[in-house]
Amino acid sequence: MVIQPFNKEKAKAELKNFRLQVPLVHCMTNEVAQELTANVLLAIGSSPAMIVASAEAGDFAKQADALLINVGTLYPKRDQAMQCAVKAACESGTPWVLDPVAVGILAYRTNFCQQLLLKRPNAIRGNASEIIALSGGLATNRGVESANSSESALDNAISLAQRTKSIVAVTGETDYVTDGKTTYAIEGGHILTTRVVATGCALSALVAAMLANTKNPLQATATACMVFSVAAKQAAATITCQGPGSFKIAFLDALYHIDQLIESK
Amino acid sequence: MVIQPFNKEKAKAELKNFRLQVPLVHCMTNEVAQELTANVLLAIGSSPAMIVASAEAGDFAKQADALLINVGTLYPKRDQAMQCAVKAACESGTPWVLDPVAVGILAYRTNFCQQLLLKRPNAIRGNASEIIALSGGLATNRGVESANSSESALDNAISLAQRTKSIVAVTGETDYVTDGKTTYAIEGGHILTTRVVATGCALSALVAAMLANTKNPLQATATACMVFSVAAKQAAATITCQGPGSFKIAFLDALYHIDQLIESK
Amino acid sequence: MVIQPFNKEKAKAELKNFRLQVPLVHCMTNEVAQELTANVLLAIGSSPAMIVASAEAGDFAKQADALLINVGTLYPKRDQAMQCAVKAACESGTPWVLDPVAVGILAYRTNFCQQLLLKRPNAIRGNASEIIALSGGLATNRGVESANSSESALDNAISLAQRTKSIVAVTGETDYVTDGKTTYAIEGGHILTTRVVATGCALSALVAAMLANTKNPLQATATACMVFSVAAKQAAATITCQGPGSFKIAFLDALYHIDQLIESK
Repeated sequence: MVIQPFNKEKAKAELKNFRLQVPLVHCMTNEVAQELTANVLLAIGSSPAMIVASAEAGDFAKQADALLINVGTLYPKRDQAMQCAVKAACESGTPWVLDPVAVGILAYRTNFCQQLLLKRPNAIRGNASEIIALSGGLATNRGVESANSSESALDNAISLAQRTKSIVAVTGETDYVTDGKTTYAIEGGHILTTRVVATGCALSALVAAMLANTKNPLQATATACMVFSVAAKQAAATITCQGPGSFKIAFLDALYHIDQLIESK
Repeated sequence: MVIQPFNKEKAKAELKNFRLQVPLVHCMTNEVAQELTANVLLAIGSSPAMIVASAEAGDFAKQADALLINVGTLYPKRDQAMQCAVKAACESGTPWVLDPVAVGILAYRTNFCQQLLLKRPNAIRGNASEIIALSGGLATNRGVESANSSESALDNAISLAQRTKSIVAVTGETDYVTDGKTTYAIEGGHILTTRVVATGCALSALVAAMLANTKNPLQATATACMVFSVAAKQAAATITCQGPGSFKIAFLDALYHIDQLIESK
Repeated sequence: MVIQPFNKEKAKAELKNFRLQVPLVHCMTNEVAQELTANVLLAIGSSPAMIVASAEAGDFAKQADALLINVGTLYPKRDQAMQCAVKAACESGTPWVLDPVAVGILAYRTNFCQQLLLKRPNAIRGNASEIIALSGGLATNRGVESANSSESALDNAISLAQRTKSIVAVTGETDYVTDGKTTYAIEGGHILTTRVVATGCALSALVAAMLANTKNPLQATATACMVFSVAAKQAAATITCQGPGSFKIAFLDALYHIDQLIESK
């Protein structure tokens, strides 16, 4: 399996495609991640909507251009609404992304995620421990943090992609994005990203947004990772960045200017 | 129908009135909007409290100086608690505001908002698509964003105000606030406001806060719009503002200094 | 009862202890406080996780190093999950903290907090009105704000600590932390803290994090208060601080540098 660095020309092509229409992203995500997720999508020029009731989730997943399912703060009512949304997305061809937060350490969410895998998400984004656990391996996460490096989850990511026909992104110091045949590596980013809650969750939402209008889901998913990597590096380098508070602000600002940043990279 | 520009002398009078007492605002709002809503109210000198259980919502709506009902992430349990709160507010004379997020595109929330209209909210704040849909017209929103200009919803706002006896604020590039007889226009603001989640939701909360002690609900609602417009313009003009992340921070800072900003406007 | 100023040497010893391991804190907190709570814990170097379902809360409270129970936006399903978590924490020896938001003004949460007291939280953190109400006194809070000074709640804090064997922190302009025998006072902080939502809630989470590995819960709780006090003072003094928006950002940055700040204090 050859790993290729993802190049910025491909990212530029995907971003150009992304700009053709403002994608409406139906986000069903966890309680902690909602605000950052919405602000990330707005900053980059997508339109988020958080519709959560079973009575509405199916209808809305059909209207939306993409759907995000994040299981961070799962509970039965939300779980049911997510199932409605996924069913509707599959029926109507709305691409959807699974973010399997903390899968593997708690039975309820692990079973739920395994059920969702059968519905074939268009993409899956997780940290190393989550991807290892989802692929049936033995992960060593504690809580929502990964105790594994993304490299260590690469084989699991590839086999998961082959089994589910999903694009799989395993993110960490280096991000790997694979369809089971081709694997892209995205370097960069910044360690401060790990000191701001829900950055991974927000990246999953951006993957959904990038999938909305693409013809190349692998490339679109890798572009989302590169966007985050470039924005994080830029944010950490701004003069106002003094820690995780100011980093997050500069990160949102950088997403707003991402076309120029990728151009000049 | 004559449209008058809202003048700052009226806003200053309302702000003076607002400062007589710290209004306690009972916010029942959506999951994405909670933090910004609370921080906006705190920045300007109001006291927010998010009480959400059916067992408490009625009691608390009676204790509070104003109530906000925002249907952004509606689901049955929250819907029931909101009904308890509205009933108690009506009985005790607590002014209340309806923010009909995404009404018109999903049947469940549309029916819920139509039921709430019968309880006569003191004020309604929405974007053009929402106000058009609420008044029975044909809106063209996608998700939570309006695809209509506020001008295009002006007739709907006026007829909605006449029918419900509510103050109606339709916000956009220009905000219009009407009681069905007099209509104020508020210019200003900044396009970056649309790149930060929940700014409209937070404005509805500020309308509630402004209604707490006013003798002139029309003027109080227009003042809330002017406060947001002035703060947004100020925020965008600060040297630190580089995008939606830093804009939001400068916006909260500007609200904290709003009396001086309106004074010097 | 002698009140001692808490000194920075004790805080340094606790912080050194805290750094031995990244504590995993299971946060069951209110809807408004979730993001700030998580970002405060991440900024200082702890690992938050918000697990909320009854099906998972017990299991996770056993895996975690500490548990936070905050009743700000209580409702029956969450209340049940919190009981599962507390039961598991007590069985497994996971230290847990109670934040009794707005206790005393609403019967449902008051009864719930009184039930939780019987399970003996390792620490309780509240404002003056909350501590007075929890100890059975007559508080004068309105909503979630305290209308009492922390001094006025000191006797209640001491008697509450004696009755429950919990560490009790009553926070305000001066913070008092007591085990019923020894009482520490922590000065400092900044008034802007009251203009940012959930700072008190986030402090309770930090108390939980500090309790994770300590041998001296009284000292650990006082350290959490001192950390917040020092970070707030530093934040208000930064050149970028222009109001509550920028204060919050500088506060998170200060927490990231807290070891140096305490060192140089």
